[in-house]
Amino acid sequence: MHQDSTTLEIITRGQGLYEFTGGVCSWLDTVGMTQGLLTVFCRHTSASLTIQENADPDVMHDLQSFFRALVREGPSLYRHAQEGPDDMPAHIRSVLTDVSLSLPVIDAQAVLGTWQGLYLFEHRAHTQRREVVLHVMGS
Amino acid sequence: MHQDSTTLEIITRGQGLYEFTGGVCSWLDTVGMTQGLLTVFCRHTSASLTIQENADPDVMHDLQSFFRALVREGPSLYRHAQEGPDDMPAHIRSVLTDVSLSLPVIDAQAVLGTWQGLYLFEHRAHTQRREVVLHVMGS
Amino acid sequence: MHQDSTTLEIITRGQGLYEFTGGVCSWLDTVGMTQGLLTVFCRHTSASLTIQENADPDVMHDLQSFFRALVREGPSLYRHAQEGPDDMPAHIRSVLTDVSLSLPVIDAQAVLGTWQGLYLFEHRAHTQRREVVLHVMGS
Repeated sequence: MHQDSTTLEIITRGQGLYEFTGGVCSWLDTVGMTQGLLTVFCRHTSASLTIQENADPDVMHDLQSFFRALVREGPSLYRHAQEGPDDMPAHIRSVLTDVSLSLPVIDAQAVLGTWQGLYLFEHRAHTQRREVVLHVMGS
Repeated sequence: MHQDSTTLEIITRGQGLYEFTGGVCSWLDTVGMTQGLLTVFCRHTSASLTIQENADPDVMHDLQSFFRALVREGPSLYRHAQEGPDDMPAHIRSVLTDVSLSLPVIDAQAVLGTWQGLYLFEHRAHTQRREVVLHVMGS
Repeated sequence: MHQDSTTLEIITRGQGLYEFTGGVCSWLDTVGMTQGLLTVFCRHTSASLTIQENADPDVMHDLQSFFRALVREGPSLYRHAQEGPDDMPAHIRSVLTDVSLSLPVIDAQAVLGTWQGLYLFEHRAHTQRREVVLHVMGS
């Protein structure tokens, strides 16, 4: 049994979903873990994680539209608005999605299904430098 | 320290919540882990996981009604609709619930509360064969 | 590699977000784990977990308002209502947030970002005694 960890930096340029499946799989290859547990953790409260279909970009478009309509931006809607109209909606959208994900590793690969990709869901309007911590434990 | 994993197959027949707590506990019994961490991972983007009350079936009915009203099905609502009106709503409902769950194992049992059951939340209208990966690590 | 676990008891007095980051960090200090994986698990179906900004109390206020508006309380809205108007909304709000969280531990600390705090999200109106299980595994 051994473990390893790293931090991925993802630069985001506005609201949207940024796939980072490739970065996770590449790192996992370098660690050389045959069986174990991979954890993905987002160190922010206005960006989050999700796993979704990575075949059709329309899925990302529709996801964003849905969250934009569900969690409205508006100056009178929230008390917490120091950083602009996208501030509090970003926190709420983060709560509705994921901050951590756990993926079993079998035969040296994360057990993602055929259509599953890992995404950072950026909820802020302006450029951000995001940190996603990866940790794996196993043998 | 050792680890083990398996894949549960769950056949779903339409939208709804399918409990699989029994399948998880049975498998955990065969593994013989006293203390550790159990991970449950859903390999799909149109079905998801949740833990909810398994005493009153009305909870499942109300949950489904809520998600049906929150994430509408309609031909003009989404770009991604190749597979029918339940296609994109299924993705969104998956994002709003869980793709992975982590349960500590203590005294050879997952630490589920009295009323907690593990559910596969099927969001597609037609029969599906779903895969849920279980992984446990501990001693 | 070793592991440890404990149960935090949190008394809640009505709906709202109760921070317990301090309790988790204190326990982690006593365990003395340098690198590993921390799991936080909520043993209830009408209270849940989330990680959010712990600098401005307005974030908690706005979060609560959002969930109150999104998941309405009303006698005619749900079949499952034996325990009052907050019963079924509590289950739904739990499903929309988290029951388990996974946090890598590096340099003897959970890798929480600068603004991230761990919260128990209480969805019931009356006083409750809640159990949150902590488990850590590593070296």
